[in-house]
Amino acid sequence: MHKHYFTPGPSELYFTTEQHLKKAIKTGVASISHRGQQFKDIYKQADSNIRELLNLPDNYKVLFTNSATEVWDLSAESLITEKSLHIVNGAFSDKFYKVAKQSNKEALLNQSEWGSFPQIDYNLVKQADFIAITHNETSTGVSTPLETIYKIRKENPEAIISVDAVSSLPYLDIDYTKIDSLYVSVQKCFGLPAGLGVWLVNDRSVKRAEEVNKSNTGLKSYHNLLTLIKYGNDFQTASTPNVLNIYLLAQVTGDMLNRGIQLIRSEIKYKAAIFYKMAESHQKLNLFVKEKSLRSDTIIVIDSFEQTTSLLTFLENNKFIIGTGYGKKQQDQVRIANFPTHSKEQFEMLTDLLITW
Amino acid sequence: MHKHYFTPGPSELYFTTEQHLKKAIKTGVASISHRGQQFKDIYKQADSNIRELLNLPDNYKVLFTNSATEVWDLSAESLITEKSLHIVNGAFSDKFYKVAKQSNKEALLNQSEWGSFPQIDYNLVKQADFIAITHNETSTGVSTPLETIYKIRKENPEAIISVDAVSSLPYLDIDYTKIDSLYVSVQKCFGLPAGLGVWLVNDRSVKRAEEVNKSNTGLKSYHNLLTLIKYGNDFQTASTPNVLNIYLLAQVTGDMLNRGIQLIRSEIKYKAAIFYKMAESHQKLNLFVKEKSLRSDTIIVIDSFEQTTSLLTFLENNKFIIGTGYGKKQQDQVRIANFPTHSKEQFEMLTDLLITW
Repeated sequence: MHKHYFTPGPSELYFTTEQHLKKAIKTGVASISHRGQQFKDIYKQADSNIRELLNLPDNYKVLFTNSATEVWDLSAESLITEKSLHIVNGAFSDKFYKVAKQSNKEALLNQSEWGSFPQIDYNLVKQADFIAITHNETSTGVSTPLETIYKIRKENPEAIISVDAVSSLPYLDIDYTKIDSLYVSVQKCFGLPAGLGVWLVNDRSVKRAEEVNKSNTGLKSYHNLLTLIKYGNDFQTASTPNVLNIYLLAQVTGDMLNRGIQLIRSEIKYKAAIFYKMAESHQKLNLFVKEKSLRSDTIIVIDSFEQTTSLLTFLENNKFIIGTGYGKKQQDQVRIANFPTHSKEQFEMLTDLLITW
Repeated sequence: MHKHYFTPGPSELYFTTEQHLKKAIKTGVASISHRGQQFKDIYKQADSNIRELLNLPDNYKVLFTNSATEVWDLSAESLITEKSLHIVNGAFSDKFYKVAKQSNKEALLNQSEWGSFPQIDYNLVKQADFIAITHNETSTGVSTPLETIYKIRKENPEAIISVDAVSSLPYLDIDYTKIDSLYVSVQKCFGLPAGLGVWLVNDRSVKRAEEVNKSNTGLKSYHNLLTLIKYGNDFQTASTPNVLNIYLLAQVTGDMLNRGIQLIRSEIKYKAAIFYKMAESHQKLNLFVKEKSLRSDTIIVIDSFEQTTSLLTFLENNKFIIGTGYGKKQQDQVRIANFPTHSKEQFEMLTDLLITW
């Protein structure tokens, strides 16, 4: 029996990825030049599918990076003028804060405990020229209410709003006119092998990078946002990219369009609902995020404490592989991914199985 | 009939890559966590195979990056104290020079025309604390004599010597005690899909990065050399890596060990020798690199001028895909890769075919 990966990423491949990978090998996609027309056509296809899938406005560019993590370095250099603010409530939002602090800029912090969401300090919001928000904290399973993001924009319309959507896109349905930069890794909800990030930036972000480039700080790295934009405008990349993954992304986003993004989103809602309902009435399962409105639909986190190994083993014996807690919570929690590739049937099986535990 | 890719990279996959990719899909390698033991074992295997294949001294670390190009940014930040020297004779050596110049450091230039190699200015060599040498200029087909690299080391034993071996490793058989840093992309001689770089650094490089970190310049990026080393010491990576490609690299380097690195190297020498011999006596083929001792065995460049399209079409009609010239030479030259995956038989076919042109 095949194992079911419910790990938060790398996770189970999207159910069509394998067939596309086989076709890619057969047709030699891994050998094509990234400076030729065939590659540009693949980039264009991915770009066009992503725009349609996300309803992305025309003033956005679709760029490829090596990972979402790379976007931290690139944003710190290209998008922060002097002062950034970081809404931090877990390991990944905190890492971006530390990256910004390590750069030449000043970094402000608006923080809360893991499992919760900070009270927003609008005094800090108004001071920053760049505000980093993690939509879905993969380490804690907390999802940021979209109204909070929109309110931050309203209170500081000049700042660049950057959204980490690593473990929520394309489930996330956000108003792109109220943010400026959003990034994702393909090994989460897109169900692809790891090794590719997608960075969406609007014209305000490009303008900011141009301003930073003219300032004293300047843009020092080769892979800065302006270089990526320059090549991206011609559907190319600055360096040899992960061509195979860009091809797979173009195919999988096409499949998602055919399936329908509304259906994919409603299925994720359904799977989250049945899981949370089961967990709430379960004797031994304690949900980590107490505040229901903050619970992520795509990353479900359970306080398992001394039962962690027993739970992981029980599930693995039944071919379900779920994730451990992240970082300091590794021994005390488990994490379950609810991504587009996980079918309703798989989730029902997992839920039924957990009832017997 | 299957097409033969003799493009300089991405190129033909190594002949065992496809089977390893199929196995990877079947066994779920693309879904494993990059923080788990299974990934560490894959990293260890790749590390150990690379060490054996290259006869790498113990004072070297094997690190993974997203591309060789990323190593330019990382080196400029982590390995240059104040002043770098760049031996430039083509597009890629020139790009690294420009990356260093764009960073906060001073960059010196020792340059020659494309197709040749500069007279080394030892006055410049002695001024630099970091010296960048491109072993095999992929844009021009010029290979740097190893004696030149060793002489540079001798004249400035304090400087960090960085070698770009993008299109020559593991054909390149260099004395690692006379350099400090060497990097490669896997889509060239290793015959893997693009999207992974391998960076070999010795203890002198690590020491240098520690010194730079303590200096005023500091290390500003998250993905600096010290972060890579910190994770690499535990066979992990700083960000989610291209797990699939690291797995494929571990497998393919294992296959290369089984085949024998001496055999692989002697076959490349043989293929280069028959091709150059044919080209020298060919009425219509003009080799770009006039000085025989500078001719690369792995990247062969031909001045094709107004016959470029006719030559490419002739070969493509016979299922041989070769590369165009690079950058400013795109219309006027063609480039042919001679990598480990290209068999003697394929090269004999290509050579015989060109005689009829």
